[in-house]
Amino acid sequence: MTTETTEARVLDAIRERRDLVNAAIDEELPVQRPERLYEASRYILEAGGKRLRPTVTTLAAEAVAGVDPMSVDFREFDAHSGDPVDVMRAAVSIEVIQSFTLIHDDIMDEDDLRRGVPAVHEQYDVSTAILAGDTLYSKAFEIMSETGADPADGLEAMRLLASTCTEICEGQALDVAFESRDDILPEEYLEMVELKTAVLYGAAASTAAVLLGAGDEVSDALYQYGIDSGRAFQIQDDVLDLTVPSEDLGKQRGSDLVEGKETLITLHARREGVDVDGLVDAETPAEVTEDEVDEAVAVLEEAGSIEYARETAEELTARSKEHLQVLPESDSRALLEDLADYLITRGY
Amino acid sequence: MTTETTEARVLDAIRERRDLVNAAIDEELPVQRPERLYEASRYILEAGGKRLRPTVTTLAAEAVAGVDPMSVDFREFDAHSGDPVDVMRAAVSIEVIQSFTLIHDDIMDEDDLRRGVPAVHEQYDVSTAILAGDTLYSKAFEIMSETGADPADGLEAMRLLASTCTEICEGQALDVAFESRDDILPEEYLEMVELKTAVLYGAAASTAAVLLGAGDEVSDALYQYGIDSGRAFQIQDDVLDLTVPSEDLGKQRGSDLVEGKETLITLHARREGVDVDGLVDAETPAEVTEDEVDEAVAVLEEAGSIEYARETAEELTARSKEHLQVLPESDSRALLEDLADYLITRGY
Repeated sequence: MTTETTEARVLDAIRERRDLVNAAIDEELPVQRPERLYEASRYILEAGGKRLRPTVTTLAAEAVAGVDPMSVDFREFDAHSGDPVDVMRAAVSIEVIQSFTLIHDDIMDEDDLRRGVPAVHEQYDVSTAILAGDTLYSKAFEIMSETGADPADGLEAMRLLASTCTEICEGQALDVAFESRDDILPEEYLEMVELKTAVLYGAAASTAAVLLGAGDEVSDALYQYGIDSGRAFQIQDDVLDLTVPSEDLGKQRGSDLVEGKETLITLHARREGVDVDGLVDAETPAEVTEDEVDEAVAVLEEAGSIEYARETAEELTARSKEHLQVLPESDSRALLEDLADYLITRGY
Repeated sequence: MTTETTEARVLDAIRERRDLVNAAIDEELPVQRPERLYEASRYILEAGGKRLRPTVTTLAAEAVAGVDPMSVDFREFDAHSGDPVDVMRAAVSIEVIQSFTLIHDDIMDEDDLRRGVPAVHEQYDVSTAILAGDTLYSKAFEIMSETGADPADGLEAMRLLASTCTEICEGQALDVAFESRDDILPEEYLEMVELKTAVLYGAAASTAAVLLGAGDEVSDALYQYGIDSGRAFQIQDDVLDLTVPSEDLGKQRGSDLVEGKETLITLHARREGVDVDGLVDAETPAEVTEDEVDEAVAVLEEAGSIEYARETAEELTARSKEHLQVLPESDSRALLEDLADYLITRGY
């Protein structure tokens, strides 16, 4: 199978699941009284998003069950015990948590654009954004509580969701703390990324196994798959911030650099003696020019920093796929492997 | 039994439980890495608080089990099924949720003082306060997930906690929306209070029954006990804001009035033709004088508005106690009744 075909297959899988997930979000998170609160809560969810985490959850369910992709209704998915489990609710719950973190992070990071539209605190106001995030937070737990799984499995999924949210908060706290430090080690950066981004991929993958009663070996393996591919995903995000045209990114290319955000790329460059803080003069993404970003990228490429990040992402992706060997061989497992590749080959 | 003795008995019950709850908070929510995040998360919890909701939870557990107050270890409480349940974890979880809502509400309401100390967003900053609240939110679910209850009961307790948090967000959204309206009906105000304040009392009381497997009739009755006494609690809070010296309140007396916050008192006064908006000239709590508050209170007393609020609270309290008739007669049940009385007779 050629790379092109593989990517097309993954993109198809993402698109068909995205449509199902969007329909399920409408069902699980209807606009109700007070309307303005629920409109604000749904605003970023409606602005787009590829639904990558729900894709991981639904694919993981199929790979655990060893069934063909899209062959079983996610709303009534057969568990090993025989009781149907609403895997779609779990997928929606994870996406709702992701959306809550975006809304609160954008307030903290003073990011005014998200998915090409104003952030919630810009479109509404800071109070509404805080409350919209808080509402999504509890709705995610409500939705996860009603999958119909065996109660012990359902409770474990809730516990996992809660500890994952705690870790995401810890990761965001580290990220904020790093802004005032200039001595961050690559290991510290990777730990932050694991907490802030990768654990939700870990939860997205392993929740399916937990709810289906697949046992600790399988759920642990899927968790590790999510952790490694999630870390690779974030490193790729850092690469894309420098290499993808602003109109495709939905925000100014080079924003991380302008805002002084450390990434694996800048940490490598510092080690190679690059004056990272002097790479761009602009102080806000609105001020920076494409030429200025081009010059900065050239310096980082010369130092081998972008290549270093790409290689690290590739190593993590290879490792993530190895964890899947515990699952029975199937088209669904193969698609889960291809998805890991897609996370670091995607253009945006 | 005289009223004085009853109140002394309730105060004793609150104090001895408060000490246990504080020790349990230290155990369940230790300061760990990243330290600043956990310090900020614990800051308001450490600033004080009577732990009324954990008192409700632990007393409800005793009343459900029909055992004497303080006769059973809350960490290993016997459920009807015989398995020990960590009722204290449930009590801590509810208090942690309460603390999260205080931190986020103070940002939204721009309240700079809480329990006599600077609010978290003042002591730290807004980003840290958002994240501290988010951390408490997930920790509460983590703590609630580990009570050792029968999984079906544990899952139901988690679902109840989640739907309660959603309702609290809805209540806060209504509260914020009311600020820009001058045509709020008393029924609308009471609905807002039910969502913003009473549902957490409902959850505090009924969670004990849920975890102990006491059945729907008992858990529903305890939920209604919490709803009615929680509404009465909030109305009493509104009364206290006008009648208790600032040093006991931990903030300026009359703050609600200065900030234009509607309460059952102001809504009644408007109906009686009082020019509520003209009661005080000061625009911030820092500017208002005690004399100005005294004069405003005199007008509200003359209109019968404070008495109206007191009577409403008394009616709700009487109703809350009736719900407890479903429980076996015991000293614990009597104490739960006395606690409802205390919520509206307390001085601050």
